Amino acid sequence: MNNNVTLLPEEEIVLRHGKVKALMKCQGIDFALIADNATIYYLTGRVYAGFVGLYADENIPVQYFVRRPVGLTGEGLTYIRKPEDIPALLLTDKIESVGLEFDCQAYSSCLRLMKVFAGKNPVNVSGVIRKVRSVKTAFELGLLRRSGIIHTNVYERIPSLYQDGMTDLEFQIEIERESRLKGCLGQFRISGGSMELFMANILVGDNADNPTPYDFAMGGAGQDPSLPVGANGTVLKPGVSVMVDCNGNYTGYMTDMTRVFSIGKLTDLAYKAHECSIHICRVLEEQGKPGIEAKELYNKAVEIAEASGLSDYFMGHKQKAGFVGHGIGIEINEGPVLAPRSKDVLESGNVIAIEPKFVIPGVGAVGIENSYVVSEDGLVRLTHAPEEIICL
Amino acid sequence: MNNNVTLLPEEEIVLRHGKVKALMKCQGIDFALIADNATIYYLTGRVYAGFVGLYADENIPVQYFVRRPVGLTGEGLTYIRKPEDIPALLLTDKIESVGLEFDCQAYSSCLRLMKVFAGKNPVNVSGVIRKVRSVKTAFELGLLRRSGIIHTNVYERIPSLYQDGMTDLEFQIEIERESRLKGCLGQFRISGGSMELFMANILVGDNADNPTPYDFAMGGAGQDPSLPVGANGTVLKPGVSVMVDCNGNYTGYMTDMTRVFSIGKLTDLAYKAHECSIHICRVLEEQGKPGIEAKELYNKAVEIAEASGLSDYFMGHKQKAGFVGHGIGIEINEGPVLAPRSKDVLESGNVIAIEPKFVIPGVGAVGIENSYVVSEDGLVRLTHAPEEIICL
Repeated sequence: MNNNVTLLPEEEIVLRHGKVKALMKCQGIDFALIADNATIYYLTGRVYAGFVGLYADENIPVQYFVRRPVGLTGEGLTYIRKPEDIPALLLTDKIESVGLEFDCQAYSSCLRLMKVFAGKNPVNVSGVIRKVRSVKTAFELGLLRRSGIIHTNVYERIPSLYQDGMTDLEFQIEIERESRLKGCLGQFRISGGSMELFMANILVGDNADNPTPYDFAMGGAGQDPSLPVGANGTVLKPGVSVMVDCNGNYTGYMTDMTRVFSIGKLTDLAYKAHECSIHICRVLEEQGKPGIEAKELYNKAVEIAEASGLSDYFMGHKQKAGFVGHGIGIEINEGPVLAPRSKDVLESGNVIAIEPKFVIPGVGAVGIENSYVVSEDGLVRLTHAPEEIICL
Repeated sequence: MNNNVTLLPEEEIVLRHGKVKALMKCQGIDFALIADNATIYYLTGRVYAGFVGLYADENIPVQYFVRRPVGLTGEGLTYIRKPEDIPALLLTDKIESVGLEFDCQAYSSCLRLMKVFAGKNPVNVSGVIRKVRSVKTAFELGLLRRSGIIHTNVYERIPSLYQDGMTDLEFQIEIERESRLKGCLGQFRISGGSMELFMANILVGDNADNPTPYDFAMGGAGQDPSLPVGANGTVLKPGVSVMVDCNGNYTGYMTDMTRVFSIGKLTDLAYKAHECSIHICRVLEEQGKPGIEAKELYNKAVEIAEASGLSDYFMGHKQKAGFVGHGIGIEINEGPVLAPRSKDVLESGNVIAIEPKFVIPGVGAVGIENSYVVSEDGLVRLTHAPEEIICL
């Protein structure tokens, strides 16, 4: 085991920390104290219990304050028992404003840190982190490509897992197993405590029209009222669509992909909507370049669905999702967001999932989802499974 | 589908809300606004996006402020777009202090709610909720018993899933599948953003001695530095122990159970430590009655391990966990906590997992974990799989 507190190549560490420091400087944040697992992983290449301390000043080295695990080593590392131990370890005269993760740390935790840094100006560093993490480095893109390849391999195996008479849950469990055997970590990292999903959302027939409390593109009643999303025990019968949106976390970085299967033949409307989804992807792939506003892509998708007479089914039927795409990476809900009021502008290195989906009453959900890297030439796809509806 | 915003029997709703209101009254909290999924589930029997609003005054009905899903009905329900819509719906002259979930809601979210309730005194209601949820109702105990029964059935099937030459991950994946086929929801609800685990912690041989950043009883290196806990690809070979601590969420309420298997024969020290774990459980089962301090049970466990000369291995070897048990229910880390500085006192209706475990270098982890209801006669066990080490 490598016990160094940073597991990434040195130049990658320098690059990531430099990006954060530059944006902190722009926003007048002298020092940031990071406690969120996903961002500690971003800044070090590992998860530990504790904090990363970054000064905006690039001449002051990054500090790693660790509670657990025991046995880590490396420059800048100090073991602490509690956050109150930190100020004595800092150049506090260099710090006027302290950036804390207001958007993801609990109120009590932030309040405690504010007391630790009494006299300093506490500011929200969450926006800086979100912005930096939304533009992937070449190293990160390598991990995302790797996830995309394995994710694709798993999807190509899905038809072989089907047996006549299965329920959605039984089918899902075989897909989960296949994913795990191919290296899926299972863990579905998502920002914000209110989002929950286990491993995959598999929607069969009219269960796709059951609204969910969660802010996902699609719903489903789920197995139990304690987790009301996804498969609900529906038997796979001729004439229904089977939408598979399964966890693509093979490397700590997640790709997001959805494909649709059918039992026998679906209605013409279902095929038309599915083709429309593919068409939307093709159009957005062309238009999705650095500098374009994320909301423009959303509006384009809505416009195409409307022009095809499919608005009633687009992004849900009884309940509609308010976006057609979202950034992905260490977490499944990163920036930029493709939504009507999004202020995000696409940048080279963004990685986004686009998921123009439809719910057709009596049939189920259709449409695809792919993950893409934003490049100067448009979107470069990371998820390569066949896009047509495959009859099981 | 039942579209009522509350899915529990009316008397159960009254009971749970009454418990919260009574404790709010004690603490001078006039009104509480609950947003956490786990507590919304506790208060309504379902998860929705929005808030539950409770007045301490038992004459004022509970209000349900819902953003998603569409289509819910029921007394006290109002659809809202944003929290700013709420005050106009309240009897604000009855409210001086507003209880918010400081311990689990993000700083930004709480700040926003404080602005919504400007002029009112914001106070932390997390302690009230934690306390109320730690004492289960008869209805909740029924769900926990049900989880315990299915959990036990799954554990009894574990030996049949083993094949010579498997890795820890391959074995885990078959156990995951078996659990899921028996109805496991997969979802592992845990309070606090810093705790992460996928489905199960299966530790084979010396991987049990790899320290983890997470505050679990045992560690393991994990598959990937992005999720450093649990199985790491170790091949199951003669002489190693296989500790299985797998998700017991079959009903929205989780039981927690650990059992140990072996490949061939283990060392005498390993069997001695395992017997000591079972002995600690038997002693704590006797002593664990309403009124006893949780830390007394912790101290008793430590004392028995010491008297057996096993302190070096107790609750970890390279890194030690700071507790021997914890409350369970909707989340896996509820109150009371069996730890040296715990202020919890056991009450009738608490449900706790006790997990006196040992890590024996060269062999792996041994010891058991059971889930129990605290009753006047001591602890009543919910998890019934055989406790001895089973040779695979």
